[in-house]
Amino acid sequence: MTSSLQAALDPRSIAVIGASENPDKIGGRPLLYLSQFGFRGEVWPVNPRRDEVQGRRTVPRLSALSRAPELAIIAVPGEAAVAALDECAEIGVKVAIMMASGFGETADPAARAAERAMVARARARGLRMIGPNSQGLANFGTGAVASFSSMFLEVEPRDGPVGIVSQSGAMSVVPYGLLRGRGIGVRHTHATGNDADVTVCELAAAVAADPGLKLLLLYLESIPDPHHLAEAAAIARARGLPIVALKSGRTAAGQAAAQSHTGALANEDRLVDAFLEQHGIWRARDTTDLVAAAELYLKGWRPAGRRMVAISNSGATCVMAADAASQAGLDLAPLEEGTQARLRAILPSFAATRNPVDITAALMTNSALFSQILPVIAEDPSADAFLVGVPVAGRAYAVDDFGRDTAAFAQATGKPVVIVAPQELVAAPFRSRGLPVFSGEGEAVRALAQFIAHHERMAAAGERTPHPAPSSPSASPAPRLLDEAESLALLARAGIPVVRHRLCRTADEAVAAAAGIGGPVAVKGCSAGVAHKSELGLVHLGVDGEAAVRAAFEACRAGLAGAGHPFAGAIVAAMARGRRELMLGAHRDPFFGPVVVVGDGGKYVEAMPDVAVLLPPFSEAQVRRALDGLRLAPLIAGVRGEPPLAIEPYLAAAVAVGRLMVERPAIASLDVNPMMIGTAPGECLALDAVVFEEGSAP
Amino acid sequence: MTSSLQAALDPRSIAVIGASENPDKIGGRPLLYLSQFGFRGEVWPVNPRRDEVQGRRTVPRLSALSRAPELAIIAVPGEAAVAALDECAEIGVKVAIMMASGFGETADPAARAAERAMVARARARGLRMIGPNSQGLANFGTGAVASFSSMFLEVEPRDGPVGIVSQSGAMSVVPYGLLRGRGIGVRHTHATGNDADVTVCELAAAVAADPGLKLLLLYLESIPDPHHLAEAAAIARARGLPIVALKSGRTAAGQAAAQSHTGALANEDRLVDAFLEQHGIWRARDTTDLVAAAELYLKGWRPAGRRMVAISNSGATCVMAADAASQAGLDLAPLEEGTQARLRAILPSFAATRNPVDITAALMTNSALFSQILPVIAEDPSADAFLVGVPVAGRAYAVDDFGRDTAAFAQATGKPVVIVAPQELVAAPFRSRGLPVFSGEGEAVRALAQFIAHHERMAAAGERTPHPAPSSPSASPAPRLLDEAESLALLARAGIPVVRHRLCRTADEAVAAAAGIGGPVAVKGCSAGVAHKSELGLVHLGVDGEAAVRAAFEACRAGLAGAGHPFAGAIVAAMARGRRELMLGAHRDPFFGPVVVVGDGGKYVEAMPDVAVLLPPFSEAQVRRALDGLRLAPLIAGVRGEPPLAIEPYLAAAVAVGRLMVERPAIASLDVNPMMIGTAPGECLALDAVVFEEGSAP
Repeated sequence: MTSSLQAALDPRSIAVIGASENPDKIGGRPLLYLSQFGFRGEVWPVNPRRDEVQGRRTVPRLSALSRAPELAIIAVPGEAAVAALDECAEIGVKVAIMMASGFGETADPAARAAERAMVARARARGLRMIGPNSQGLANFGTGAVASFSSMFLEVEPRDGPVGIVSQSGAMSVVPYGLLRGRGIGVRHTHATGNDADVTVCELAAAVAADPGLKLLLLYLESIPDPHHLAEAAAIARARGLPIVALKSGRTAAGQAAAQSHTGALANEDRLVDAFLEQHGIWRARDTTDLVAAAELYLKGWRPAGRRMVAISNSGATCVMAADAASQAGLDLAPLEEGTQARLRAILPSFAATRNPVDITAALMTNSALFSQILPVIAEDPSADAFLVGVPVAGRAYAVDDFGRDTAAFAQATGKPVVIVAPQELVAAPFRSRGLPVFSGEGEAVRALAQFIAHHERMAAAGERTPHPAPSSPSASPAPRLLDEAESLALLARAGIPVVRHRLCRTADEAVAAAAGIGGPVAVKGCSAGVAHKSELGLVHLGVDGEAAVRAAFEACRAGLAGAGHPFAGAIVAAMARGRRELMLGAHRDPFFGPVVVVGDGGKYVEAMPDVAVLLPPFSEAQVRRALDGLRLAPLIAGVRGEPPLAIEPYLAAAVAVGRLMVERPAIASLDVNPMMIGTAPGECLALDAVVFEEGSAP
Repeated sequence: MTSSLQAALDPRSIAVIGASENPDKIGGRPLLYLSQFGFRGEVWPVNPRRDEVQGRRTVPRLSALSRAPELAIIAVPGEAAVAALDECAEIGVKVAIMMASGFGETADPAARAAERAMVARARARGLRMIGPNSQGLANFGTGAVASFSSMFLEVEPRDGPVGIVSQSGAMSVVPYGLLRGRGIGVRHTHATGNDADVTVCELAAAVAADPGLKLLLLYLESIPDPHHLAEAAAIARARGLPIVALKSGRTAAGQAAAQSHTGALANEDRLVDAFLEQHGIWRARDTTDLVAAAELYLKGWRPAGRRMVAISNSGATCVMAADAASQAGLDLAPLEEGTQARLRAILPSFAATRNPVDITAALMTNSALFSQILPVIAEDPSADAFLVGVPVAGRAYAVDDFGRDTAAFAQATGKPVVIVAPQELVAAPFRSRGLPVFSGEGEAVRALAQFIAHHERMAAAGERTPHPAPSSPSASPAPRLLDEAESLALLARAGIPVVRHRLCRTADEAVAAAAGIGGPVAVKGCSAGVAHKSELGLVHLGVDGEAAVRAAFEACRAGLAGAGHPFAGAIVAAMARGRRELMLGAHRDPFFGPVVVVGDGGKYVEAMPDVAVLLPPFSEAQVRRALDGLRLAPLIAGVRGEPPLAIEPYLAAAVAVGRLMVERPAIASLDVNPMMIGTAPGECLALDAVVFEEGSAP
């Protein structure tokens, strides 16, 4: 795959179909850029009406070329664009960038069908297409700038360690503009448009292989092909390359807008979160967020933990940094007592030395305080990262020394440092030494926390198995609902603890089963196709004694008969003891495949959900972390003097369900509700299950 | 009060005690500023060792002046500062600004005691003090800049419609710097320090009376005096002046840092939220947030609703604006069909016209599209506010026309407009026409949503009764726990529906009571001082028949006797029917006074709280809004085919509890748990209550 996209990123020759003399036209802009930004391969403008365009000789049509260009830019609209794509396929172009709009992003079925058809014809002949509705690709490492974006006229490019791959044209260059404005070089800024053939994720995998990158930014309106993104993430993680992704269309309103922008299909947003986390990708909330921590990534720091020390000449900065750190999950561990004693010897008596360290306004009359405390703090082992805030300073302050000494401090400790300096005169001496500067405590702390958490996430993702490519949609009829006995048997075979039970065909069998189990039992009518047993009077709990068992058995038989369902028997089951009913479910997402849902059970699981999603394969530790994030976490740990819940068998059961969903593609969905949890491991039992399975009738 | 602080904001004469020739010293800076920024009153430097300081004749000591200055700046440290304050009180200074540090913000008990003592002496003689640990006050309307901040050397002041009142020195000028950098004029930037006498809230009330202000910003590390803030808010609301407050110390770490910064006492953060909301004050999260919507406030727009229309040449901006709007609670209502038809006649076929309106990249080749669609959209009544995003443009675009036409559009509609323009060349023509420009969709939408929601909040606060000043702490012994019968009687008298019950002294009485109630009853042992009845076996539910009632009665008597508690009798109560157990509680906060807590009840109310706090007085509508924000809101509305809960009597009960707490200061706390709620109004009943009351034994 990567080899075929090599021609998109680093082509040896480029044809521009619809080449224009006017560099402000879509067909003129790429020609200008190819000249301006030093592309060294061959460039062939295609224009049947002019001999020369922007000082280059044209050919009248693609077929007039002696050999096929590796990359073709299709800058003509509508029908002409479709014809040009076919011509590219004909002569053996490797990759075509289709800039024309008006295909899959419209509501017009004919335009959407035309898009599908042209992709099919191109693929059949080995041509890969970027677009349609693409602003183009730009590689400032090679000068292959096949884009009509206005941005590169306004903000001068500089090759650098950042790559941006985006579905949207604007969002390929807005982050570029923000980063360039901060002096950061950007190599790749690619916009894939409708992703009708090559997707943003597939291109991201090719870009992630560029060894010159230290940060990869993605803008996605849809993830129809998670396996490509998983591959990009795996390539990136193998090299320690962080990926930050802005996936828009989080909300119904956003999804509707995305549909008419790039024809994007809606993803379930919590699955996007889960998928990105599992593959070590950080999710940005918006454009500002996408580039907020860029300087931190580019420094090459390896954060060792979450303990932050804040240092400022302003108490308010100390307070706000402490608030922001707590809220972002960073610890403000106190400095060691010896360190504090040494700081007290330097600072005025009313300064704070525990952490945060408040130099106080005394810095105004003695700038040396700043330089004196840093070496002391540098020697303290109880810090993983630092925030240095100088919210106000001026001519009375040795601000250049502050920058110099902080840079030396960062060098000495090797630990991440963020600077808060809203005044430009204060920011400059820090920034000029390569330190990340922010205008507020909140921004600085959140960027630092993201940087640290992202490293943890990448480490946790490790060498994750690649995500499977989607299988073609099954042609089988609507999934069949198994009866409860079949469902429980399926769970038991998968290694999930199931309540002791027996399927009984006769009342005598039921009585015998109840006697074998002992004590009161549950008696439940069993029939495939019945999902809501209670509503048909098929659930009898605490049934005690032969007569009661017989009565319950007959009630089940009558209930099913009355509702017109076949009677497969009655399940006689032990009454489960336990403390809390959890749920454990699974289904298949059309994009992300098997999804396991863990969390609190009970009647209101849809109305007041307290659940988390996991994408298999996952470990018991991941299930535990997911539960730790839920509202019911305190119950699991034990509250009000109650013992903790014995949750381990549930963790194992969740992993087993994930495995089952991967190994048995015929299972459409599965819901264990309740999964009873007690304070002893043996109390973890599936009490009921609803399983839908595809395939032939039993 | 305001009159005494008039001398702080607009003094006719100022003495500087500890006046220095060096303008980079604390005693030199204010003298420089008073000259530089055009203060027209009298200025008297006090310095016993020099005849002249910064070109002004000095006096050797304050008492050498022929008459007292209205304002004195105390720029000497420690003991000398204390002596100077006493001297100010002696000669009749109205307000003193104490810049010295090392008092209440330290951990030193002697320093804290010294602060309390000097405040007491000053107050006794009618002197008001700002500080200690104050950076000073600055009023650019009058030139009374009694501050040693470095900021005013670096960023030129300009009088304008913004006031900033802050405990912290840095946070009085950081917002100033950010606003001035955006061209906004600032009149007041005051830093009150330790608030030992005049508090930031008291000074805010004085500043809020300035008719020149359109926006008031506060930075608070503690709110020990909510009544002053309530007064400031009332003054502001009466004039339509919005207040945005940054209250730091949200977290334990932040509170600890605030303690050593300004000696701030910790407030319970959810009460801060509730208090600010009730008084129409917007709460900012951090410094950036504090000034984020400033331009919107200064425009004088009056938003009529929450329907936002987004317009952009970028589909991605449309998608991200839609996401951000949904997440911020703004609606993306579709434009009217007629409007859409007119837009379709202007825009290319692949453009989106519903809302968001996506002009598409066609704008690059036809800038007139922008100007053509605005008048069409202006006529559509289904919009309350607009977002216009031009994330990328350049030389091919008529960006100046965009700015001009959008300004005309804003003028024509009178509705709020926010602009997203990360490129400076695009931002400039909008900004120069006075439109609020943001660099990202998230920032723009959040500022707009804040502006709209803040107006709603101010309108809802209306003419709220001022918050009562705190009463002096009671000297009574620890509050007494009433017994259940007393507690239920107290609730019933307050108009709260209580379960039908009778306190029975003998088993015969209990039997008679049970017979009178009919059906199974609850029998509960009753004794003052017993909060957890279940644990002593004092709760018997579903007791049916004479024998069972007798047995339960005797068990209660025995249980209390066994635990050494007096036996006040047994309560025989009806068994309540209902659907959900809510809780309804109240207590007294040392700062905010009576607090009512509403929400979900049950065993895990502490471990998994789903509650909201309200500060009385409040209305039933406010209780309903509070419940609407809770997790259990769907249950109240009715889920899974269940009928809605009959919540009205609960709303009334919550209001009654609030009234009770205001009217009966002796009630220390009150907990109704459970308050049963059913689907019929009569099912709303208090089943049990725990009330603590101060005062003498019964």
